[in-house]
Amino acid sequence: MITPRSYKGMRDHLPDAMRLRRYITDTLIDVLRRYGFEELSTPIVEYAETLEGKIGEDEKLLFRLQFGSDQLALRYDQTVPLARVIAANEGKLGMPFKRYALGQSYRGERQQRGRYREFWQLDADIVGVDSPVADAEVIAIVCESLQRLGFAGARVLINHREILSGLARVAGVEAEAAANVYRIIDKLDKIGLDQVREQLVQSGVSADAAAKICDFISLEGAPDTVLAAMQSTLGDDEAASAALANLRAIIENVALLGVAPESYTLSPALARGLSYYTGCVFEAVLAEPPMGSLLGGGRYDNLIGMFSKRSLPTVGFAFGIERLYDLMVELKMGPTFERFIDAYVTIFSPELEPESLRLASELRAAGLSVLTAYGPARLGTQFSEADRKGATLALVYGPDDASANLVQIKDLRTGAQEPAARDQIVAAVQQKLQT
Amino acid sequence: MITPRSYKGMRDHLPDAMRLRRYITDTLIDVLRRYGFEELSTPIVEYAETLEGKIGEDEKLLFRLQFGSDQLALRYDQTVPLARVIAANEGKLGMPFKRYALGQSYRGERQQRGRYREFWQLDADIVGVDSPVADAEVIAIVCESLQRLGFAGARVLINHREILSGLARVAGVEAEAAANVYRIIDKLDKIGLDQVREQLVQSGVSADAAAKICDFISLEGAPDTVLAAMQSTLGDDEAASAALANLRAIIENVALLGVAPESYTLSPALARGLSYYTGCVFEAVLAEPPMGSLLGGGRYDNLIGMFSKRSLPTVGFAFGIERLYDLMVELKMGPTFERFIDAYVTIFSPELEPESLRLASELRAAGLSVLTAYGPARLGTQFSEADRKGATLALVYGPDDASANLVQIKDLRTGAQEPAARDQIVAAVQQKLQT
Repeated sequence: MITPRSYKGMRDHLPDAMRLRRYITDTLIDVLRRYGFEELSTPIVEYAETLEGKIGEDEKLLFRLQFGSDQLALRYDQTVPLARVIAANEGKLGMPFKRYALGQSYRGERQQRGRYREFWQLDADIVGVDSPVADAEVIAIVCESLQRLGFAGARVLINHREILSGLARVAGVEAEAAANVYRIIDKLDKIGLDQVREQLVQSGVSADAAAKICDFISLEGAPDTVLAAMQSTLGDDEAASAALANLRAIIENVALLGVAPESYTLSPALARGLSYYTGCVFEAVLAEPPMGSLLGGGRYDNLIGMFSKRSLPTVGFAFGIERLYDLMVELKMGPTFERFIDAYVTIFSPELEPESLRLASELRAAGLSVLTAYGPARLGTQFSEADRKGATLALVYGPDDASANLVQIKDLRTGAQEPAARDQIVAAVQQKLQT
Repeated sequence: MITPRSYKGMRDHLPDAMRLRRYITDTLIDVLRRYGFEELSTPIVEYAETLEGKIGEDEKLLFRLQFGSDQLALRYDQTVPLARVIAANEGKLGMPFKRYALGQSYRGERQQRGRYREFWQLDADIVGVDSPVADAEVIAIVCESLQRLGFAGARVLINHREILSGLARVAGVEAEAAANVYRIIDKLDKIGLDQVREQLVQSGVSADAAAKICDFISLEGAPDTVLAAMQSTLGDDEAASAALANLRAIIENVALLGVAPESYTLSPALARGLSYYTGCVFEAVLAEPPMGSLLGGGRYDNLIGMFSKRSLPTVGFAFGIERLYDLMVELKMGPTFERFIDAYVTIFSPELEPESLRLASELRAAGLSVLTAYGPARLGTQFSEADRKGATLALVYGPDDASANLVQIKDLRTGAQEPAARDQIVAAVQQKLQT
């Protein structure tokens, strides 16, 4: 006998979990559908060379496999496969192309709470257009999705990679040291301003430059105020000024798309880890409970060029379904899913089983979800079973009912029971379900 | 630059394909929902020992991988993971348990048309009950699903493993030789009755026994007729008689569940390859085009026992989504999906872009799927783009419209264009979409 265990860091999703998980992904996909996104699905197994050389350090977390002489690996995200598909099918897909993808990815993370080796993500990207409207759309989608899931206090923090580069230049940081500066200031929320200043100086940044950087990343307030203050610091840097104009246009378009002002804010310290971002970057955070980011995204205009002679500008993000699910369970969010079966048809006796099955069949033909008992048992037992299985109604067709052409409908929410005409049963059940 | 290619035998599913694939799986899941099935999802990666020793020869097709010292493999079906989950969660799930699972499995098949190394399956199983009503439900689900997908000529062939065993005993075949007999008679459709007889004799079955077997597997007609003829051959064999009674009860229940008689038939030659079946077996076939089975299933009462002290009776099947999809494309079945975006909002000029984005946002808030142009272009170009992107309507908000508080609605199905009041635009668009 083999011990029945799933592989560590990989979860079975039982029906209770799947109901909430589907609620989450259906809600997100509905928002994406409204914005005209289409679905793309790619294999979980890729040639190893497709995945290599894109995520730096994390490459050691790849699940590698060999089949015959083929060197393969399980995908660690859905962005690199998107770039591969775009490079191979650009003409066929037609640009701009808005796609979403729902599926698992794999990383051999060390075992800890909230880290999974198999995790589901819902990715959304707009390929082939550098308009700030595209950046604004993906930010609007994130805000709207989190609102619809019930994360009322969620906020999207927004910044721009070229503004960070400009800051480094204006502060007089050498180009080679800039990546390290981004890494340090990205920790502002965790370590505070004094620690950031100290680490900057320790890493070789001058005290003056560190002070300038710290002033900049402390900027707060309405987008217009922050943009104006950024402009006054970076005004002489041409690339940074262009980035500021781009960021201003993105923010204006986010508002035009109907997003409430309290849902997003400029965050001059936000850098985001992934090296492939080239323009705006953003992440979603919750005020309560305090925790890391819910999701991140941004513009990456060069990734597709790794598979193709010409690259295509792209902006997108990925919802981490594991994190959303775990949080919603912890915070008791989402529907309760107590009654997910419409009706349970009891079996009164072996003689009446055929008529009970016919009854179930009629209800199913009308689109209702219906269970039947498998063989007769005490009615009380069958009612308990119906309740346990999440049925809203239990139907009884006994000998007295049969001779009177009736069906008893028991409402399991209230315990109330009343008869309905056998030949009107579909309408009667539908009416009960609507109350 | 890396060549953008997917691994052989694994397909990218572009949006055109995904629309049909989702139509297929949504249709099948809707049927399962009506029968009260709930969703279960398990990891694609399993400990190798979980998968080993269950599929005989095919085990060499496993995609194996190692992570640290962990010996792992990609699942080759969703039935063995189901057995593992049931063994680990029996009390939590509550029996009987009706579950479906949609996902990929992996087999390193040789490259040929219609064979994929990554393939999607939709599995459905009823665990924990041996009632013939359960067998009948899964058969009814198969019939109903294929009807709803448009496979009007599909038929489900039904047999019973214990009837085959009885036949072998009654014909005097040694127990060890029986598996080989099943293998030969299962080929009846492909090689014909004479070849079956010849191969039986070549394999060591006596001429008398071969004749008896061939008479039996040639039985045809309405279920009652075939069951009576089977009974007269097998009547003295106790286990076979019990199997006949079980098969009769299953068939009667299939009829009670509302399945049309022409959708299913008894097929005494049907054996089905998988060694774990213990009761009824079935497969779905198409009359046109002539081809192998669309799907197969049956009762397997011992599999869960490989992971648990006590086994649980189970009956189920798996739809092969790759095959359904390939067939529906080949036979031009299913919806055409020409218009899957509700509206495309054109951008007349940079000045009017903000108002056009607001318009799009209003329509999205009403649940419609809406694309906008990314920046202005000639209206003709924008209309072509709208058409190419699958939009039903194109909306124009130009300077004249702005001053008259109008929006022009162009119906891309007919080319007709007419104005609607700006403040009634949601209702006007919804009405157009309903025509």
